[in-house]
Amino acid sequence: MKIAVLGGDGFCGWPTSLHLSDQGHEVHIIDNLSRRWIDTELGVQSLTPMDSIQERCRIWKEISGESIRFHLLDLAKDYDRLRHWLAEYRPDAIIHFAEQRAAPYSMKSDHHKVYTVNNNVSATHNLLTALVETGIDAHLVHLGTMGVYGYSSVGAAIPEGYLDVEIENLQGEKKGMEILYPTRPGSVYHMTKSLDQILFQFYAQNDGLRITDLHQGIVWGTHTEQTRRHEQLINRFDYDGDYGTVLNRFLIQAAINYPLTVHGTGGQTRAFIHLQDTVRCIELALSDAPSAGDRVKIFNQMTETHRVRDLANMIADLTGAEIANLPNPRKEAAENDLIVKNDHFLELGLNPTTLAGGLLSEVVEVARKYAHRIDRSRVPAVSAWTKDIATRVNHDPEGRQLRSVS
Amino acid sequence: MKIAVLGGDGFCGWPTSLHLSDQGHEVHIIDNLSRRWIDTELGVQSLTPMDSIQERCRIWKEISGESIRFHLLDLAKDYDRLRHWLAEYRPDAIIHFAEQRAAPYSMKSDHHKVYTVNNNVSATHNLLTALVETGIDAHLVHLGTMGVYGYSSVGAAIPEGYLDVEIENLQGEKKGMEILYPTRPGSVYHMTKSLDQILFQFYAQNDGLRITDLHQGIVWGTHTEQTRRHEQLINRFDYDGDYGTVLNRFLIQAAINYPLTVHGTGGQTRAFIHLQDTVRCIELALSDAPSAGDRVKIFNQMTETHRVRDLANMIADLTGAEIANLPNPRKEAAENDLIVKNDHFLELGLNPTTLAGGLLSEVVEVARKYAHRIDRSRVPAVSAWTKDIATRVNHDPEGRQLRSVS
Repeated sequence: MKIAVLGGDGFCGWPTSLHLSDQGHEVHIIDNLSRRWIDTELGVQSLTPMDSIQERCRIWKEISGESIRFHLLDLAKDYDRLRHWLAEYRPDAIIHFAEQRAAPYSMKSDHHKVYTVNNNVSATHNLLTALVETGIDAHLVHLGTMGVYGYSSVGAAIPEGYLDVEIENLQGEKKGMEILYPTRPGSVYHMTKSLDQILFQFYAQNDGLRITDLHQGIVWGTHTEQTRRHEQLINRFDYDGDYGTVLNRFLIQAAINYPLTVHGTGGQTRAFIHLQDTVRCIELALSDAPSAGDRVKIFNQMTETHRVRDLANMIADLTGAEIANLPNPRKEAAENDLIVKNDHFLELGLNPTTLAGGLLSEVVEVARKYAHRIDRSRVPAVSAWTKDIATRVNHDPEGRQLRSVS
Repeated sequence: MKIAVLGGDGFCGWPTSLHLSDQGHEVHIIDNLSRRWIDTELGVQSLTPMDSIQERCRIWKEISGESIRFHLLDLAKDYDRLRHWLAEYRPDAIIHFAEQRAAPYSMKSDHHKVYTVNNNVSATHNLLTALVETGIDAHLVHLGTMGVYGYSSVGAAIPEGYLDVEIENLQGEKKGMEILYPTRPGSVYHMTKSLDQILFQFYAQNDGLRITDLHQGIVWGTHTEQTRRHEQLINRFDYDGDYGTVLNRFLIQAAINYPLTVHGTGGQTRAFIHLQDTVRCIELALSDAPSAGDRVKIFNQMTETHRVRDLANMIADLTGAEIANLPNPRKEAAENDLIVKNDHFLELGLNPTTLAGGLLSEVVEVARKYAHRIDRSRVPAVSAWTKDIATRVNHDPEGRQLRSVS
């Protein structure tokens, strides 16, 4: 297949591009390199030394003999170039990772909120419109997030996208209705993925676009089978308070003898998936495309759930690290349960890589290897969900600033 | 109160501004005048001769002694100027009409889809972010649409915003959950109002913004008590296939001896409200503001429902006009029922102006007075929901073009 990977220079996009190329697909990466610009803006960098996308593609060609072509294009800002690109290359499938993906970054300031909404909504909507306009019948696979549902469940399992409800009609009869499982996003970032759902529903219904929306858990790990093949194929690996995600951050903190930063009681339960399973799930989703006229296929892309404090204890046991309980910069329930259905991917043949599988140590080893590249002052999470929380979290009771706020 | 009316130069915005000013409020109109630009783009104009907003405000001052101030500002494109404006003027309430509001225009081409989404989402989100950033505790009243729900009801009444559903938990117990009544928008325009709902839910929850979302039916009529006071206070009145709305279009068509354009079987049932009731509803919504921390208040702003062909028959009986059944350019059910709850506004004291109340003739009179300003070639609705429909609707079976397509 000819596959366009939008956002193919990113944390999930790059290993996905390698995986699909390795399977013999013709892979085209479209990226505006915004994630590299954000590193520059924040003054942080990937823990792993990451080459330019052009250099990465050159190395991949040397190692594998396969070509991955890179196209510098901003989906959100340049609709016409996107449409022309699609009309020229006519991909069979499109993997859409091209959105600002960090909740803390999306809450950092008013301008970061505005950027995240404008960028993510325009990227997704421009893509949908361009597919309709060019008449290209590509299967669109989008990376969403479990976080659209918020974390205040009623103790019921979160289904894969849809919920059957009963509505009483005027005659007093109960009528069944299938609805999108209601979202209640907890950050501006998560909200944009909830907006995406509405966009997908409309374009599948009105134009028969074939769309799969993957509601992904928190990704951990850094290597995949392909990134291990050469030092210069190494993946991005974020440790900072904005882009680092909880389990990877604990592993890095353990590697540099930094206390594991647990926010609040650590009672938050989250869904997780290893990066190797992410790229495998994309492959499986591609193999199970909807037909024109079908509703959007929605899969939960996660393999296990854990409470944050349990993860911290597990990593502490594994590494001897200490645990630091810090005030929570997010506005969220202190404790929540989370039960998630993931039958679709299991049925398609996913064989989960679990935390118990031994890969935790690999991550710690990668982190130790590059520990000299870490700026310890960038480890704390300082983006607060409201101004009140910012005051409480980043200053002590006497008003002294506790953490550096960029 | 100091009230900002965003989009105050528009069809609903202008009479609302006059109504609130007449009640003694300090009214500030914020508008980018995009609706006037779209007239220029499409080469159509309001049936009624409409003065500049500055001239309208001057006349209102002469007639009433009250000032309405106009501020030229693009919410969607200029976040920083919006924030500075709010910080300087600190309104007590904000009425948000500032979105592209025609479904056919939103479906006209790929660029019109992109414009509608970018403009509407950015306008609403910039406003919400700026309110949080400036810490202004204004009551935000937004004009949404009944159309977010689509028109494929299960025979149940559409409630005011929320639905109680039961979800079975892991123990097999039914647990109640209140959700936003599920939307299923039928055009890009309607979709943007569905996106707005998600934005409002998030900002009410995360930041305690006080928001009322009015799901309005199709507005008919052109005069209000204030616009009648002077020829130059006259309201915009659209007759073209993009911006004209069904009942007003029938009345204008009747006035110029143009057959009433019924799409498909005319079996579509829609909700309606007279313009005078729109401005009264805004007043009532302002009097019933939510508190910080409340969920978004959602009211259905409509007074009656009618099937399109029944309306056409009613106008034909009233005026002697003929009826023309044309292919439907929209992708929608041929026939639908629609039952809508509107208890909130009735409880607050709304006394509906119904079609039976005699104002239909007033609209026909206004249309006759300005009939010489009508370009009959702009009456048909030519924006089609898909390319297939466009071919079917605008050409006869031999492929000849039936209607002018701009």
